[in-house]
Amino acid sequence: MTTDVIPASHEDLLEAPAIGVLSSIGPDREPQAHPIWYDWDGGELRVSTTTDRQKYRNVQRDKRVTMTILDPDNPYRYLEVRGEVVETEEDPDKRFIDHLAKRYLGKDEYPDKQADAERVIIHIAPRHAATMG
Amino acid sequence: MTTDVIPASHEDLLEAPAIGVLSSIGPDREPQAHPIWYDWDGGELRVSTTTDRQKYRNVQRDKRVTMTILDPDNPYRYLEVRGEVVETEEDPDKRFIDHLAKRYLGKDEYPDKQADAERVIIHIAPRHAATMG
Repeated sequence: MTTDVIPASHEDLLEAPAIGVLSSIGPDREPQAHPIWYDWDGGELRVSTTTDRQKYRNVQRDKRVTMTILDPDNPYRYLEVRGEVVETEEDPDKRFIDHLAKRYLGKDEYPDKQADAERVIIHIAPRHAATMG
Repeated sequence: MTTDVIPASHEDLLEAPAIGVLSSIGPDREPQAHPIWYDWDGGELRVSTTTDRQKYRNVQRDKRVTMTILDPDNPYRYLEVRGEVVETEEDPDKRFIDHLAKRYLGKDEYPDKQADAERVIIHIAPRHAATMG
């Protein structure tokens, strides 16, 4: 799967393990924003969360999100992706959060795993991108 | 002016010239988020924009915003401030954007000044804060 929404000039920011800021709409229709890990397969952004978190509830209510990624090496270079949650997938074996732990921490297993937390994989399809730098 | 909303442990992130991500609500009630310079006086966050920008129009419509600041030296440490725009002040002499250029770039004058752009200072009062790290 690929998309032509992301400019080739800034796709490295999706490929790199940078920390993104995911903005979503809260229960009172207010903006909420949280730093988050992500993964990019050329077509969709994927993030991991648990079903007891505000950001999970937010995107069940309103699927529109924005991911903002600053270049860790140059804060005047960034990519802003507006997108839509197109799929919420269960992660019962926590394989995806382990995959992110490998990507971000170089560890085989996510260190903060809570046995009772229901992990999900949220798929975000980009609809529009803005860049600087 | 001071506020007790910001935990003392993370106020350094407001005092430092880090790049924030300002989330606001767009015309279709969707989340928008833009990297931005800011300044902190112990009570309010101040940002600069021009009246032709989307973020200016957004906060005229809905005053609720979120500023998310990642520690440039430790991406697992951050401060998220939910707040409200309490004042929009004209900046006819562009003194405030010059002040930010000094703070961020060490320059006496903002290098991208456009003579015809109407600059404003947006004052944000923190209402709630969340931190990590």
